[in-house]
Amino acid sequence: MRITPAEELAYRCKRLQHFMVEEGLDAVIMLQNADLFYFTGTIQAGNLYVPAEGEPLYMVRKDFMRARMECGLKEVVPFSSMKDLPALLAGYGYPVPARIGMELDVLPVNFFDRYQKVFPAARFSDATPSIRKVRMIKTHYEIHLLQDAANQVDKVNSRVKEVVREGMTDLELAAELEYTARREGHQGLVRMRAFNGEMVYAHVFSGPDTAVPAYLDTPLGGMGLNPSFGQGAGYNRIERNEPIIVDFAGSFDGYLVDQTRIFAIGGLSDKLKKGYEDMLKIQERMMALAPERPTWGRIYEECLDLAVELGYAESFMGRRGAQVSFIGHGLGIEIDEYPFLAKGFNDMTLEPGMVFAFEPKVVFPGEGAIGIENTFYLTESGLKQLTFSDQKLIIL
Amino acid sequence: MRITPAEELAYRCKRLQHFMVEEGLDAVIMLQNADLFYFTGTIQAGNLYVPAEGEPLYMVRKDFMRARMECGLKEVVPFSSMKDLPALLAGYGYPVPARIGMELDVLPVNFFDRYQKVFPAARFSDATPSIRKVRMIKTHYEIHLLQDAANQVDKVNSRVKEVVREGMTDLELAAELEYTARREGHQGLVRMRAFNGEMVYAHVFSGPDTAVPAYLDTPLGGMGLNPSFGQGAGYNRIERNEPIIVDFAGSFDGYLVDQTRIFAIGGLSDKLKKGYEDMLKIQERMMALAPERPTWGRIYEECLDLAVELGYAESFMGRRGAQVSFIGHGLGIEIDEYPFLAKGFNDMTLEPGMVFAFEPKVVFPGEGAIGIENTFYLTESGLKQLTFSDQKLIIL
Repeated sequence: MRITPAEELAYRCKRLQHFMVEEGLDAVIMLQNADLFYFTGTIQAGNLYVPAEGEPLYMVRKDFMRARMECGLKEVVPFSSMKDLPALLAGYGYPVPARIGMELDVLPVNFFDRYQKVFPAARFSDATPSIRKVRMIKTHYEIHLLQDAANQVDKVNSRVKEVVREGMTDLELAAELEYTARREGHQGLVRMRAFNGEMVYAHVFSGPDTAVPAYLDTPLGGMGLNPSFGQGAGYNRIERNEPIIVDFAGSFDGYLVDQTRIFAIGGLSDKLKKGYEDMLKIQERMMALAPERPTWGRIYEECLDLAVELGYAESFMGRRGAQVSFIGHGLGIEIDEYPFLAKGFNDMTLEPGMVFAFEPKVVFPGEGAIGIENTFYLTESGLKQLTFSDQKLIIL
Repeated sequence: MRITPAEELAYRCKRLQHFMVEEGLDAVIMLQNADLFYFTGTIQAGNLYVPAEGEPLYMVRKDFMRARMECGLKEVVPFSSMKDLPALLAGYGYPVPARIGMELDVLPVNFFDRYQKVFPAARFSDATPSIRKVRMIKTHYEIHLLQDAANQVDKVNSRVKEVVREGMTDLELAAELEYTARREGHQGLVRMRAFNGEMVYAHVFSGPDTAVPAYLDTPLGGMGLNPSFGQGAGYNRIERNEPIIVDFAGSFDGYLVDQTRIFAIGGLSDKLKKGYEDMLKIQERMMALAPERPTWGRIYEECLDLAVELGYAESFMGRRGAQVSFIGHGLGIEIDEYPFLAKGFNDMTLEPGMVFAFEPKVVFPGEGAIGIENTFYLTESGLKQLTFSDQKLIIL
């Protein structure tokens, strides 16, 4: 268990304040769990007030004692009602903010209404793009956390060989792997920022079920257990000569990595084996391209072009009719952070410090899907791979 | 795996339309996962349009094929962009809605802005109270689902005796119980409607860690593994003569029950044993009161009065300074549904069909917490208990 160092929090806050000045914001009021963890080192029910200049103020409703224990900010105060906000801020000498940024991509309408009433003269705008831009550049401290998560996911991956057997259900395999991850410190949940975003950490499915799309914005979704949660492992039984996909989100001390490996009992058809080799080629293309710091969209376009060239125009990144228009996603505290390696993101470039999962996958309807996923980060001296489990197809 | 019957969906829709007419709404546009599951039988990325009169229309972006498979509504159509909404509705002969209800308690501001642009002349209001009022009265079909979840949580509870041992960590016990639940069909996640609501299904903690409050709106929170997720099991080791709290949210085919039981290796102090007996007395008080169909707030007040009488003014429902002002909560698809057995809810009464978890708990700082939780439902002929594991303190 780590407590985020005070200097780390101060650095993050300074970076946000830089963007706030650029955007003309007097203050950002933050409420969302993942952002609170990033900027305060803890998650409590409360509000973080970041002025354009000066110390941030963490106002905590519940639990104040734990905030004091876990939060490295100088100013942590108890508070009970949002109505007290202006008086509390005035007491700390903060001027009344005229332009306020809030997390408008996640903040529910009813909450926002209340803030508008508390600050009736203020102009509000979306602070999330700025928050995302701070969070997308990982610090050394964060890279260490991500390495711990990569270790965990490698242990989970090693466990597959020990437990998988013909006739077991995808759910039974998923349960074994979740159990392994939990004992290795997985927190038991994956944070997703998108509205309605919900995910289990073991996306484990085999055979034709690997090719089933889902509501989730992923290339492969899985059947899930029932229509209330149609993603991930279902009751399908693992057979010989079918791909078993182990797409696992490791999580340690709040940080996520994403890795996919393919297993099979017996063997796989030449078509699937070639598909897998081709997905590795697409990964190599990305690895050659990334150090040039291209736009996010260009990575997507170049890899898609290669996929089309290799014959996967109608099967790359999802079943025909359900193909997704991305090939990778930033991650850290949430599974859907900047950068988006996706169609249309042509104005943002890959920069040192960015961490992303890259997941070329291809679907053969009726046979199953195949692909690979690793978590990478770009440094000044090149692209590094965080997840490190053996990349060979694992035939048991 | 169940597919929600078409008649069930039709009945639910009719009930919503009844409230819509009362509220003067021409249409409700629904987006949130739990509501979609309730009113369509599936969860896909899309919009459900419910007119005040006539058939609902489920417009599905991803995955349309699965929506067709899992959804019992007559009108399920593919759609790609929100901008197409008015034309799509006109094509089905729906008039342009002048008053639209949306889920303003969960809908992010940025999403809402887009709907306001698509329907510039409409007046929007919060449809969630109406949706909650429909969902709070469970059908027979839903009671069967809840009974399955109660069976699952009983199996989890039986497993405790087999795996718990001195010196194991709370996390290790939680991992064992989650593993059991998953193999029994638990979907691996608990839905919570509240903004920032996130929960693991095994709230398992022991000894002094049971008395630690958390950001979550629960009487007992748990330390969790790290400050990024400060709830549930942590690395505390289970010792003799200390309470082990197993607060578990079972889940089957999308439906949740909540149950808490107390275990101990060796024994417990007289103070804790008396505390447990007193919590059972509070449960009895509620059980005697509920069939009279009191207001939600009255149940809370009467039980709180009894707790104060029994000497727990400063320790009931949380550590002093972190006490919560509820004693139970409705549940079904989400863990925080109507009814709220909480302070101030004096205008809504308990009605037949309502399902709720009741959880009198008391905290002895330094020693640990104790209490009980069961899931109940009210019928025309009295209060029934859904969760059924043995209510005795389990001393091992």
